[in-house]
Amino acid sequence: MIPRYSRPEMVKLWSPETRFRIWFEIEAHACDAQAALGVIPKANAEAVWRAKDVEFDVARIDEIEAVTKHDVIAFLTHLAEIIGNEEARFVHQGMTSSDVLDTTLNIQLVRAADLLLAGVDRVMAALKTRALEHKDTVRIGRSHGIHAEPTTLGLTFARFYAEMKRNRERLGNARKEVATGAISGAVGTFANIDPRVEEHVCKALGLVPEPISTQVIPRDRHAMYFATLGVIASSIENVAIEIRHMQRTEVLEAEEFFSPGQKGSSAMPHKRNPVLTENLTGLSRLVRMAVVPALENVALWHERDISHSSVERMIGPDATITLDFALHRLAGVVEKLVVYPENMLRNMNKFKGLVMSQRVLLALTQAGVSREDSYRLVQRNAMKVWEKGADFKTELLADPEVTAALTPAEIEEKFDLGYHTKHVDTIFKRVFG
Amino acid sequence: MIPRYSRPEMVKLWSPETRFRIWFEIEAHACDAQAALGVIPKANAEAVWRAKDVEFDVARIDEIEAVTKHDVIAFLTHLAEIIGNEEARFVHQGMTSSDVLDTTLNIQLVRAADLLLAGVDRVMAALKTRALEHKDTVRIGRSHGIHAEPTTLGLTFARFYAEMKRNRERLGNARKEVATGAISGAVGTFANIDPRVEEHVCKALGLVPEPISTQVIPRDRHAMYFATLGVIASSIENVAIEIRHMQRTEVLEAEEFFSPGQKGSSAMPHKRNPVLTENLTGLSRLVRMAVVPALENVALWHERDISHSSVERMIGPDATITLDFALHRLAGVVEKLVVYPENMLRNMNKFKGLVMSQRVLLALTQAGVSREDSYRLVQRNAMKVWEKGADFKTELLADPEVTAALTPAEIEEKFDLGYHTKHVDTIFKRVFG
Amino acid sequence: MIPRYSRPEMVKLWSPETRFRIWFEIEAHACDAQAALGVIPKANAEAVWRAKDVEFDVARIDEIEAVTKHDVIAFLTHLAEIIGNEEARFVHQGMTSSDVLDTTLNIQLVRAADLLLAGVDRVMAALKTRALEHKDTVRIGRSHGIHAEPTTLGLTFARFYAEMKRNRERLGNARKEVATGAISGAVGTFANIDPRVEEHVCKALGLVPEPISTQVIPRDRHAMYFATLGVIASSIENVAIEIRHMQRTEVLEAEEFFSPGQKGSSAMPHKRNPVLTENLTGLSRLVRMAVVPALENVALWHERDISHSSVERMIGPDATITLDFALHRLAGVVEKLVVYPENMLRNMNKFKGLVMSQRVLLALTQAGVSREDSYRLVQRNAMKVWEKGADFKTELLADPEVTAALTPAEIEEKFDLGYHTKHVDTIFKRVFG
Amino acid sequence: MIPRYSRPEMVKLWSPETRFRIWFEIEAHACDAQAALGVIPKANAEAVWRAKDVEFDVARIDEIEAVTKHDVIAFLTHLAEIIGNEEARFVHQGMTSSDVLDTTLNIQLVRAADLLLAGVDRVMAALKTRALEHKDTVRIGRSHGIHAEPTTLGLTFARFYAEMKRNRERLGNARKEVATGAISGAVGTFANIDPRVEEHVCKALGLVPEPISTQVIPRDRHAMYFATLGVIASSIENVAIEIRHMQRTEVLEAEEFFSPGQKGSSAMPHKRNPVLTENLTGLSRLVRMAVVPALENVALWHERDISHSSVERMIGPDATITLDFALHRLAGVVEKLVVYPENMLRNMNKFKGLVMSQRVLLALTQAGVSREDSYRLVQRNAMKVWEKGADFKTELLADPEVTAALTPAEIEEKFDLGYHTKHVDTIFKRVFG
Repeated sequence: MIPRYSRPEMVKLWSPETRFRIWFEIEAHACDAQAALGVIPKANAEAVWRAKDVEFDVARIDEIEAVTKHDVIAFLTHLAEIIGNEEARFVHQGMTSSDVLDTTLNIQLVRAADLLLAGVDRVMAALKTRALEHKDTVRIGRSHGIHAEPTTLGLTFARFYAEMKRNRERLGNARKEVATGAISGAVGTFANIDPRVEEHVCKALGLVPEPISTQVIPRDRHAMYFATLGVIASSIENVAIEIRHMQRTEVLEAEEFFSPGQKGSSAMPHKRNPVLTENLTGLSRLVRMAVVPALENVALWHERDISHSSVERMIGPDATITLDFALHRLAGVVEKLVVYPENMLRNMNKFKGLVMSQRVLLALTQAGVSREDSYRLVQRNAMKVWEKGADFKTELLADPEVTAALTPAEIEEKFDLGYHTKHVDTIFKRVFG
Repeated sequence: MIPRYSRPEMVKLWSPETRFRIWFEIEAHACDAQAALGVIPKANAEAVWRAKDVEFDVARIDEIEAVTKHDVIAFLTHLAEIIGNEEARFVHQGMTSSDVLDTTLNIQLVRAADLLLAGVDRVMAALKTRALEHKDTVRIGRSHGIHAEPTTLGLTFARFYAEMKRNRERLGNARKEVATGAISGAVGTFANIDPRVEEHVCKALGLVPEPISTQVIPRDRHAMYFATLGVIASSIENVAIEIRHMQRTEVLEAEEFFSPGQKGSSAMPHKRNPVLTENLTGLSRLVRMAVVPALENVALWHERDISHSSVERMIGPDATITLDFALHRLAGVVEKLVVYPENMLRNMNKFKGLVMSQRVLLALTQAGVSREDSYRLVQRNAMKVWEKGADFKTELLADPEVTAALTPAEIEEKFDLGYHTKHVDTIFKRVFG
Repeated sequence: MIPRYSRPEMVKLWSPETRFRIWFEIEAHACDAQAALGVIPKANAEAVWRAKDVEFDVARIDEIEAVTKHDVIAFLTHLAEIIGNEEARFVHQGMTSSDVLDTTLNIQLVRAADLLLAGVDRVMAALKTRALEHKDTVRIGRSHGIHAEPTTLGLTFARFYAEMKRNRERLGNARKEVATGAISGAVGTFANIDPRVEEHVCKALGLVPEPISTQVIPRDRHAMYFATLGVIASSIENVAIEIRHMQRTEVLEAEEFFSPGQKGSSAMPHKRNPVLTENLTGLSRLVRMAVVPALENVALWHERDISHSSVERMIGPDATITLDFALHRLAGVVEKLVVYPENMLRNMNKFKGLVMSQRVLLALTQAGVSREDSYRLVQRNAMKVWEKGADFKTELLADPEVTAALTPAEIEEKFDLGYHTKHVDTIFKRVFG
Repeated sequence: MIPRYSRPEMVKLWSPETRFRIWFEIEAHACDAQAALGVIPKANAEAVWRAKDVEFDVARIDEIEAVTKHDVIAFLTHLAEIIGNEEARFVHQGMTSSDVLDTTLNIQLVRAADLLLAGVDRVMAALKTRALEHKDTVRIGRSHGIHAEPTTLGLTFARFYAEMKRNRERLGNARKEVATGAISGAVGTFANIDPRVEEHVCKALGLVPEPISTQVIPRDRHAMYFATLGVIASSIENVAIEIRHMQRTEVLEAEEFFSPGQKGSSAMPHKRNPVLTENLTGLSRLVRMAVVPALENVALWHERDISHSSVERMIGPDATITLDFALHRLAGVVEKLVVYPENMLRNMNKFKGLVMSQRVLLALTQAGVSREDSYRLVQRNAMKVWEKGADFKTELLADPEVTAALTPAEIEEKFDLGYHTKHVDTIFKRVFG
């Protein structure tokens, strides 16, 4: 985790304080269930809740762990210091450390998903606003980086909105993947604890009991989770690259926001760098790199080996914190993106009217001119534009062979931008309803 | 694609024949829609269907492509050779090559998903059969490769079944991800074709119209698809590694099926290698390697660049063919796996009764013996087992300090396997309903 | 392997014919060594060489393999058919299949490296030619896609040349990594064969004996090999992206070669797509995807498991064939790249003279103007360029406050391109010697 | 970076203190060079060295950066506070931030490589010691996890030693890859600074001048560096997996060291988990995950974009710190590994003598028995071992058909372990010289 690429909310979720708080809740709810089953005394279960609002002393727990060499035991010892040794004696009974640790990890991943969903929502809201704002802002569509046909900037935003909406659904699925808990013992047989304890704890914590676990919750769930984060990261890169292209000096159709007073921006007005979207490109790689190790984590030996643990200690916080930061950075970029519609028109007309050459070619053939002749007519006028900077429409209107086939009005019509934008509303309806 | 790791059905799906067949269907349905909209004559649309049952001549199309340098044009030329030049003149009108190519890719991926789903089903059926068969076949559960507590082989199979069931749902989602089509023109604006053509074609081919496309269908869909294949592959590896462990000489709890007459198997009966599951481990890596390039394919420049195309030409067939093969190989391995329950018991008792030491320790403390003393008592008897091969229960029953705290019946009870299997039915109910 | 992304030489290297030829050479050389050691009769060793110029019948070998289920045995059977059963009886004595298979794989990888080195050489030659050609072709250097300071196109080519030269050295190392052979038996102990056989065979085939092998040659060597291919692929992407940027409509500083008669290029002269370099971007992803599975292949169980084999069957040919093709495609693109120096100047002057604003700022402060005032002076003139399209130098020369600090000659000097190119020769000397 | 998986030396290398110290050295040496060239006054250059032994105040620099929003300027401001504003006025003249930042990154990577080399050395020393110690400790070699032929534990260690030695050389190459520095200005043209400054600074800091840079040092160097770390990590996994296999309950040929007093180890002597090597398996995945983003970092736009920066901020420290920790953890595991030679023999004899069946088969055929008969003879005796636990040699000696072909001495000889270990010395000589 890199502080400058993190937001406090997500960082807090991975703090020792949060972890111990979740451990406490699991243990306390488990005691309730054990008491209800008559396994432990009700009074002891109730006593655990005395620590409900106590802030656990992380330094103290670390101190104990330094002696016991076991994190869960250290926590339980500290808990006993708070609620009393006698009161605490039934806490954790019949459970294994993994019951607590694995259920906790999933709770953290679920909560991380909730934060990420909020981030996706913010990105979607920003994209929608800008899409509606620029629904009719015409700019050239490009395939292969080369001018093709006109489109609108609103369609670009709408496209990213639709992509993020898909990501929202994927993230919802990923959240569901990891919203399970397990309190099933050393090899998952419930030998030492009743399955109803698991059911109670899970329900209390918003989880579903893992239908069948070993010592651990199966890691295909986590693999799917991190794979989904990787897809979302790639979508962020997709938007980022578009903006980087728009900002490059020769294109200059949009710029990341620069505060008016920002040093350097006016003495070198051309030197405003798309550093935020470049950064997002890099962050996307960082989130993606969690995917492969998460996939490698699936095949554990028998009822568990602990190879996955170090991996998750790192990618759990890192991938979620980085993606969370990236989503909000992206939202900010989109919200404040400075758009230059006039430059869009200027770019489109770089080769005056030439992007319409295909329509003219088609019109000529439809007007009965042979393919060869149509091609020749378009070509000779196109080359004047390409080589001498002439205006394509003007040249066509002045070419008797062309005007023999097409009326001036028909030629004019081929340059009508409305031809290209006529279905924008239909598409917007599809996307935004 | 490697022939030895492929099944004909999936290979055929990626053949030129299938591809041209799908191209034909897209073009023919598009003509129908264009005719219904009055854009082209009904007769021409109907004429296209003359090629419905014609087998396209791949060699001839290649021949034409060698001249035209364009695959779609080559196909259309060949189609015209079949249905007549005049009849064919409105085919493809208003469409771009990508409309055909991208929609075709998605149809292939959808059909590939259907084949894969059948493979998952076969794996699930095999796992279920073996789970029910071995519901009560006791074997030692292992954490870290070390004996922990008893479990049953049925639970192992049930666990893999549950994992594959999740994969089935994931694959269903992945299929849905790519079940879209687009006929939206050079930059996705429908400038030259009515959106209703797209709607008609998609409906006819079991697809949903892509709400907003550019020249291409957005690649986050494909990224999610291949990421899902990667997760499934990791689950295959998970099962494969378990079987490889079971078959290793010192464990020998199960073996991949060997036909009785198989050369070498009886002159060197110890030398039966788990080559199928080792192979599955490798195939899993091959499927997974498609994930990263698929993620890198998402961020295309503007309305499309063609960098994704070569990647998909390879990973499209390779990942689906390999996974398809792997699923069926896995199913076969599970179906025919030779299980050795007696070896399972022998392994469990390698250190006679020692796996029960924790239960004894707990029983002693619950019987009022101090923690320190309980530990000492267990330890001195355990060491006799460990060092001299004694029987743990026998030693305990002969230790007066132990029998002072626990009755022989209580000691016996700690070695009762039923203690560990009492919730197997509950778990099976969760998994199989 | 995808035919359209392959060259025959590299494909042939991975053909059954080549494989069997290498198998033959290993077996024949091994017989020589065994005969020299007196283990087998000299006559038998000599007899093997009768097959030296015989083309092996792949179909026949396949036929035998269908029965024996063992590829090496099938080959040996066929060899016996050629040289005679009696003569062949000592062939392969004391060897295991892996001795042949692993040594063969390494020979193929070594030869693949040789072909790749030739590809790198062609790329380097092309880059050097274009670098020298455009040593002084000035264009704007860009950081973040934004104009920074002038540089030359020659420097761009020289930079790629230097990168490829590093790749050449890396590839040499990678070749060395896999230039080992092993004929050491079932677990690498030479129990059944003298180490001198390995030494003889390796020497004859240009390999070094693997100092210590198991049943197989250690896979860290192959991991390093494929990782190196991944780095080279990334360098190809690096060049490809530069060219794609240069070709985009708004930049148009260079174009992939278009044959004059190429359809569409003159009727739509703006629509020349950089499809080769886009393709190279995708091919780079394909080569890179071999890296992770190659790394996962390193950790085999004990003296070998066969999980690596299926992986290598695919990535061995695929990664080398694809990279080989990509190198030659890249070389062709560079060799024939159409360069537009005049557009480079036009782009540099898009904001007339503004890229020199930093030099002017520095000059003013060095002339004793305060930082604040210098900044203000540059700013007010720069904004005229930015907003109204004025010429920066003209404005500066007309600004009395500026001319109070700097003489016209001093101002002129700030716009001297020679200032930026004065060390080009030094850099070229570093790169090309 | 995860504290529990880190060593202080490597962590310190990536601290702000170390970074600022390197920045200082670059700036101070650059001033020396500038003074020598007569560009700045000698007195100013000398004054910079006043800060030579000053500890920079990280908090103060952060404070300044909060205002200036620029890390290098913040540092330079702080440096001026130390050496005096007037004295500091020529520091950094003609340089860009990237000159400092990129050169610093490479110095850190070089130093990290030095620490890693020390780690590899420790691993190699441990492997060598154990190899020599167990040169003749016989154990069964396994292919596919199945008993094959005898080998020795010393060969296993020697094999890992040879692999680590290769890694040492790779790491040396990787170190060389990044041992370059660049002080070449905004686009690498040396427009504002003499190339001799770069030469001087690099020499002073143990670097080679980057022959041709842009604003940044080319990232193929870093890609190769991280790819190399990935290979080394895979080798660590290779050793770790071997040890995990040896420690599993059914094998128990070795165990990670357990301190005698370690809780639980004697009450449950069977429950000693190979947690360190499992952890190493996970750490290996973490190091490897840096490879793909490092490869993706190579293709920057034009003279640089900053997408690589966030990636390097994370993988720079993370991959080196994790690998450094892993190497030392591995060394500790190997140094203290508890080996059980008697269990090795017991395992080898699990199926009494059966691992020698292939030698017997060969001997029979060489004695003139037909292949079919030889096979039948071996088979009928082998099955007695397999099914009834008989002793293979005893059965053979009692089989008249066998003894008709082989004398008792000949049969005995087939079970001689010396046959398998006779070349161990030769191999050790190859590995250790």
